[in-house]
This record gives sequence, C-alpha cells and structure tokens, in this order.
Amino acid sequence: MAQSHITFADLVALLEAIFVRFGTSRQTAAILADNCARCERDGAKSHGIFRMKGYADSLATGWVDGTAEPVLEDAAAGFLRADAQNGFAQPALALARDLLIEKTRTNGIALLAIRNSHHLSALWPDLEPFAEQGLIALSTVNSFACTVPHGGQSAVFGTNPIAFAAPTRSGEPIVFDMATSSMANGDVQIAASQGRQLPPGSGVDRNGNPTTDPNEILNGGALLPFGGHKGSSISMMIELLSAALTGGNYSFEFDWSGHPGAATPHTGQLIILINAALAGAAPFGVRTEALISEMMSAGVTRFPGQHRFARRKASDAQGIPLTTDELNWLEALAAD
Amino acid sequence: MAQSHITFADLVALLEAIFVRFGTSRQTAAILADNCARCERDGAKSHGIFRMKGYADSLATGWVDGTAEPVLEDAAAGFLRADAQNGFAQPALALARDLLIEKTRTNGIALLAIRNSHHLSALWPDLEPFAEQGLIALSTVNSFACTVPHGGQSAVFGTNPIAFAAPTRSGEPIVFDMATSSMANGDVQIAASQGRQLPPGSGVDRNGNPTTDPNEILNGGALLPFGGHKGSSISMMIELLSAALTGGNYSFEFDWSGHPGAATPHTGQLIILINAALAGAAPFGVRTEALISEMMSAGVTRFPGQHRFARRKASDAQGIPLTTDELNWLEALAAD
Repeated sequence: MAQSHITFADLVALLEAIFVRFGTSRQTAAILADNCARCERDGAKSHGIFRMKGYADSLATGWVDGTAEPVLEDAAAGFLRADAQNGFAQPALALARDLLIEKTRTNGIALLAIRNSHHLSALWPDLEPFAEQGLIALSTVNSFACTVPHGGQSAVFGTNPIAFAAPTRSGEPIVFDMATSSMANGDVQIAASQGRQLPPGSGVDRNGNPTTDPNEILNGGALLPFGGHKGSSISMMIELLSAALTGGNYSFEFDWSGHPGAATPHTGQLIILINAALAGAAPFGVRTEALISEMMSAGVTRFPGQHRFARRKASDAQGIPLTTDELNWLEALAAD
Repeated sequence: MAQSHITFADLVALLEAIFVRFGTSRQTAAILADNCARCERDGAKSHGIFRMKGYADSLATGWVDGTAEPVLEDAAAGFLRADAQNGFAQPALALARDLLIEKTRTNGIALLAIRNSHHLSALWPDLEPFAEQGLIALSTVNSFACTVPHGGQSAVFGTNPIAFAAPTRSGEPIVFDMATSSMANGDVQIAASQGRQLPPGSGVDRNGNPTTDPNEILNGGALLPFGGHKGSSISMMIELLSAALTGGNYSFEFDWSGHPGAATPHTGQLIILINAALAGAAPFGVRTEALISEMMSAGVTRFPGQHRFARRKASDAQGIPLTTDELNWLEALAAD
C-alpha cells in the first residue's frame, strides 16, 4: 500500500473538517480532532482515524449531540460533576479541567464525575496531561453490554477500561489504559476476518458456553472479563464508579436500536486526581523512577505507555504515517 | 476433630490477651483482636486466627512495634497522612477515622495515606464500616517481594491486594478484596502440602521459568500477577499508591532477614473515600441494587462479600466454630 506522511497539524485540521461536516460545533470538533490525531500519532491505531467512522455514523444518526454544551456542577470542594448533555465526554473534561486541577492542588484530591456522555476514544489522552503537571490520575468509563460477569451467562458489563497515570521526576509519565474485558471488540472482529481462533477464556457463545470462535462471540455471544472473577470484580467497580456515582447509564441501560450506526456508548466517566506533591516522604517522581529501575533489574523491558512515546517521537520527526487509502478515505469523509 | 463454638466477645478477649502477652499496648491489642475475630467470624480463615502465629512471631522478634503511637498529619482539606511509627496500620486508621469521614463528607472525596506501617489482615474489615455509613471506599496495600512483574524474571511486587466497598440502599454493602497475584502465598503452601499442581500462570521457578509446581514457587521461585500484563499493571499501580504516595516502603525495599519469624510486611496503605450522597442522579445505593439485580438476571448467583455475610449470621446465631485444637492453641499462646 502506498504510504504517505501527514503533519500533526494537518491531520488535526482534516479531522476537524470531518467533525464539523457531521454536525459538531467548532469547539467540539477541535477537541475531538486533537484527541483522535494524538492517538494516530502515537500508533494507537484502534483509537486513531479508525474511530472516525464510528464518530461520523453516531453523529449522522442523531444518537449523540455534537453541539451539546456541557454544564458543570460544583458539588463540593473536591467533587465536580458535569452533565455532558448527551454530547461527548471530552468537551466536558475540557470545560472542567482548570477548576479540577485547582481543586486537586488545594484539597490534595478531587474528582470529576461526567454523566450523560459519550466516549469513543482511549482514556490515556485524558490523563497524560495531568501526570505531566505532577498529578496522579485515575479514570474509568463504562461502555455497552458486551461482557459477561464471572458466573453469569449473558452480557451486563462493557469493555470498561481503567486508566492510570503517574508522574516521574524527569521522563515521560507511567500511563496504562486497559479494557477489563479479555480483549477489545475490534480485536475479535479482526480475528474473525482472519479466521483465527481466540485464546481460551476470551468469550462465550449465545448460550453462555465458553468459545474460542470469534464468530460465536460476535453473533449473539459476548466477551469474558480478563482474569476471571478478579477482573470481573474490577469491571463491576467500573460500572459503579462510571454510572452509579456519576449519574450516567450502566452499560446495559441505554437502547440505541433506534439509531442504526450508533457507535458511541451513552454512559459516564469518572476521573480522580491526586496531588503527588503531598506524598509522604521523598518526591513522588523520584519514587516512581525507583520502582521502574527495580522492574528493569528484574528483566522488564517494556513499560505501559512506552511504545506510544516512541511512536510519538517518530511521528513528530517524520510526520504521521498514513496509507494513501486512509488519506483518501478521510478526505472523502470531509467532503461527503 | 472435636468442634466447639466461641462467642465473638470471648474470642476478642482471648486474642487481646495474646496481643498483650506479645507486647502490644492495650489499645492496639483491642483493635487487632477485633479485626482478627471479625475475619474468623466471617469464615475468612486465611485472615482469622491463622494469622496469630505471624502476629506473635513478628512481635516477638522486635520487627514491628506493638506499642507504637501513630502520628496524624493533616496535609490538606482532602489529604490525611499517618506515620504508623513502625506499628500496625489499623491503629493509624482508627486514629484517623473520624477526621477522614468528616473530610469526605465536607469535600466529597478524601484520602488517608499510611506509611511506616505493617498490615497482616484482609482489607475488607477496614472498608466495610465506611460503606455502611454511605461512603464508597477503595484501599490498596503492598506487601513483600513475591510476585514477578509481567515480562520480568524475579519478584518485585507483593501480593498487593486491592479492596473496594460500595453501599447499597437497604442491604449489605458490595465489598471485594483480592490479591493481584495469581493466588495468596498461603494457598501455594497448602497445595504443596497436598502434593497438588497449580493452574498454569500461577508462578515461576527460581530461573524465572513458568511452573505449576508449588514447591518450585516456594523454593526460590515466585508468583505471577493475576490476568497477565493487565493484572501486572494494576499491581504496579498498587505499589505506587501504597508506597510512593504514602511515603512507605516498596515491597522490595525492606530487609527483614535480621528478624527471623518476621511476617508483617513493613510498607504502606492508601485509603480513598468518596461521599456517595453527591452522586449525580438517583441515590447511589438504589443504583448499586439496580446493577446487582441485572447481574442476577444474567445468572450471577454469588456476589463479593456475600459468603462472609452469610457466615457472619451463622456465627452470630451459633457462635464462631473452632476446633478444640485451635482453641487449645490460642489458649496456650495467651499463657505462653
């Protein structure tokens, strides 16, 4: 496939044009285009331009409101709520960001509970900037019912990612972002298209029986949580934090059947920030590096987020690699 | 084996006598005896009277200070620190409890960062009382290096439990408490004594190679995290929160080789509380019950904590079952 490179700024501009073309406000377009371009730049392909079809279809069908104006509620000294008004979660976070940081620095810990929101991206783009400012950040989001609780036979939980970011003294932060299902839905689709079987423990068929056949999972079956009953408990916690606490929908509560093409789960997101400057002894970043160093001594060669930072450097130097087909597809979407 | 029953109050009194006999203050004895008796009452045998040998040996060897007076540091409106002064974590939590709850109700979220502390019990006894007061509670504690990070060859992390408690409207709270290692050390010892092999993914031998032989794990080998790289990331997060943030030791940092018999890891504990009354829509407890109800509809029959609550009811009605050997052993320890 013919390969070309695009600068970060040019990719953002192109994606912005697509979002506006599909009816978002200019402000929401700018926020989501930046978010999506950062994923593509960092080699996080599953949340890069691959997601533009889902964004476009969801907007086109009227399922999500691209012009929504989020509303902030200052509930307590350390507790901010945001009603995303059936829009995307990222504009709500952008609106809350400065106040959330101020609350965290003053109180030592603070949270932002976003409800009535749609999140179709990774969580690390939300958290990484906080860690770069010396804050510890934790976030959860629920999605749509596609994962069977341990001991159950049908889907209740979403893929329910959890992300965590911690500052280091001098280098990039430590950032992980992982689904609490055995794998992402996109990976099941890829395996099906390649005729590959999945590892045991990946999912169940329509009758709730274990299967390694990706087609069985996709056709009325469901994923399993990662790590058996332990991963299932964490996924349950993510439902409680992202929905019960925020005031958003559980993964099983919304009905998008009347909006064919809808791809953005209508749920909630929780973000907790901690002021690492209040750590009990040595500076937090120094201590983070001590743990990394010990893990390297134990033979660990790859750390969460590391691959993305390496890809980012390459993209910043040489541009973001896109195939000609990808570029043509994006340009067609923008002109659609 | 001959079986007898003991009342909760009698068991607490007996355990208190043992703690005092091994040199703790009366106050610390009361706190730890209550904690340990609650575990035994709820059928959580691995953290019940089974732990008394570890407590006694650690105290006898001078590794932990049973007379330590914890010191509170009010770092910010939502950020409490406690220096346990090389004593147990639970007296530090007891000292901080009222202020921590007040901060949580006022600020919406607050944390307690305990350092220089020893924790040999389960985490759920620390959290359950908060959930019964309408608070959401999360806690992590690190332990001693016995778990290999994903991709590594030697132990860095502890068994590193994480616990979570959430209130319901009318029933018992939802409480889970799980090691982030594949299994607890005690379960490996039991398998070794029974000549049983462990499931794949449980641990590695002294050369860092996967093994299902519990003896290989115990003799220079180590555990693996649960759930592969995902569980490993969570265990890493627990090290950062329990040590880097609190100011305590990492699991790999303390050296107890000069104290034969020492069994209480000298690390840190983090507790985060959230005021569920500030939830964004319907009352949090109502929403928790809606999730439980949906999980039951999906076929889930067992919920975290449920087994303990059932055992507690039986113990409250009939007394706590102990074998005659167990009772004799405790009485001998108290008179030692």
